[in-house]
Amino acid sequence: MTFFEYIGLFVFAASGAICAIEKRMDFFGILTLATVTAIGGGVTRDVVTNIGIPIFFSKSEYMMIILISTILVILLRGSMKWKISFIMLDAVGLSVFTIAAGIKAIESDYNFMTFLFVSVITAVGGGLIRDILAQEVPTILKREIYAVASLVGAISFWMLYPLIGLTISSYLCLIFIFSIRIITYYCQIHLPYIENGKIHFKQDQ
Amino acid sequence: MTFFEYIGLFVFAASGAICAIEKRMDFFGILTLATVTAIGGGVTRDVVTNIGIPIFFSKSEYMMIILISTILVILLRGSMKWKISFIMLDAVGLSVFTIAAGIKAIESDYNFMTFLFVSVITAVGGGLIRDILAQEVPTILKREIYAVASLVGAISFWMLYPLIGLTISSYLCLIFIFSIRIITYYCQIHLPYIENGKIHFKQDQ
Amino acid sequence: MTFFEYIGLFVFAASGAICAIEKRMDFFGILTLATVTAIGGGVTRDVVTNIGIPIFFSKSEYMMIILISTILVILLRGSMKWKISFIMLDAVGLSVFTIAAGIKAIESDYNFMTFLFVSVITAVGGGLIRDILAQEVPTILKREIYAVASLVGAISFWMLYPLIGLTISSYLCLIFIFSIRIITYYCQIHLPYIENGKIHFKQDQ
Repeated sequence: MTFFEYIGLFVFAASGAICAIEKRMDFFGILTLATVTAIGGGVTRDVVTNIGIPIFFSKSEYMMIILISTILVILLRGSMKWKISFIMLDAVGLSVFTIAAGIKAIESDYNFMTFLFVSVITAVGGGLIRDILAQEVPTILKREIYAVASLVGAISFWMLYPLIGLTISSYLCLIFIFSIRIITYYCQIHLPYIENGKIHFKQDQ
Repeated sequence: MTFFEYIGLFVFAASGAICAIEKRMDFFGILTLATVTAIGGGVTRDVVTNIGIPIFFSKSEYMMIILISTILVILLRGSMKWKISFIMLDAVGLSVFTIAAGIKAIESDYNFMTFLFVSVITAVGGGLIRDILAQEVPTILKREIYAVASLVGAISFWMLYPLIGLTISSYLCLIFIFSIRIITYYCQIHLPYIENGKIHFKQDQ
Repeated sequence: MTFFEYIGLFVFAASGAICAIEKRMDFFGILTLATVTAIGGGVTRDVVTNIGIPIFFSKSEYMMIILISTILVILLRGSMKWKISFIMLDAVGLSVFTIAAGIKAIESDYNFMTFLFVSVITAVGGGLIRDILAQEVPTILKREIYAVASLVGAISFWMLYPLIGLTISSYLCLIFIFSIRIITYYCQIHLPYIENGKIHFKQDQ
């Protein structure tokens, strides 16, 4: 699980760095946005649940991974041929962050609502803060099934783990979140939205 | 008081949902913005005052009210004839959230500054977060006497309750905040602002 | 040190008020943005490190300083001849907030990462929140060596204080941060950024 978490950190940091480059931020801005995207979800969770100093601050290996990811993005700027693997890795990050936070929430005996909040905010909070800092309407509110995949996966996890145990259910839900994200992405399945008083079921950007 | 709090939650959720529809967010975004607008103020208060896990997470009836409000907004999209009652209900929410938070602050023996912060942020914090997520300059900073009504009411409450008791002063200040908001809204009374080095006393949009 | 902190509060409040006027906010918005800019960094620090109710709420003299600063800005609107001294004073605020927070962090026995976060966020957090509320891509991510001066100063402080003691190292690093900020500002030294896949070393706004 820790290995997957590192992948998640790496990819989320990269997405922050790429976003910062598009906004013409300087090298410090690039590193900052990479850091905030990678750990913003977890820090928000720790702040809202009041557990003391956020875990991130005692994990120097996290900062190492973020640094490496940022340097790689800077070196590879422009050559975005790796975009396909990026979507894949990002979906890994989304699944792992959701389930890892969910396990901690269950161990902390949180109730259902707190469990849901903790799972989803850890997975999508970093991207949310990234978009706020970069002055974009948060992607997770607007396009693609992203936070919803995390949410559906977390609910399934909550219902499954008393039946089949923490280990099996966590791996099942990991795969489940990953699949929802990847399938809806490639089949361009979207949630409906409303425009001019009509409900639209297809995105027509 | 609880009944009025439910009205406040309902109306704040509706204002978030309407804002999300205007920004063409999908159904998940609409529900998220409704939730954040309804409970953002209270959660911010609980996070800043460090009282442990925010109260919202143990109140599942809150989520019910937000859900119903969101569904109603989605069903009624377009037909905005109910706008007049909306301003009224929103002013109810503003008053009740201010005073309910103020009562809790007094019971927690907070000092004046903390009391003020807690009262006002509970009432206007949700709308603030809504505007940040929707990429608008927060309305409460720009137009209309809104946060100011909450602020003036909270100050009056602080000065009145040692004189005439918590119950009477709370109802008086409820009516006071509601009146300030409604009267300044319909008489188009604004605070002054500065443009080109001149102080303007009338809004000229 | 307290005297310098007051200067910092005063200048940060002024920068918030000026920004609010540019955005045509009303008098309440001007005071709010001034307050948030002046104390946003410290409050964020207190919230993230979970120390209970933020220190600001028990310091009524802080609010006095912010009020005076805001009133002065409103009275002096338009006449911006004092811009040179403003940059100077702002650099004083940046240095003092960094080092004052750093001293508290050392006294609280925080580790290196927490120390760094606490020092830098106290100094630049207020400006960050100001820019988010005013709907700007945060200046500290985009232009000029600002947060970087705070960061470099904090790192130096961390390395120096075990060698030459808290008092001497704090004054040395104060001067160091101030100098980095002022020299890079007047010599227009910037961090590199990336555009069209190329690394640029000079800002060409």
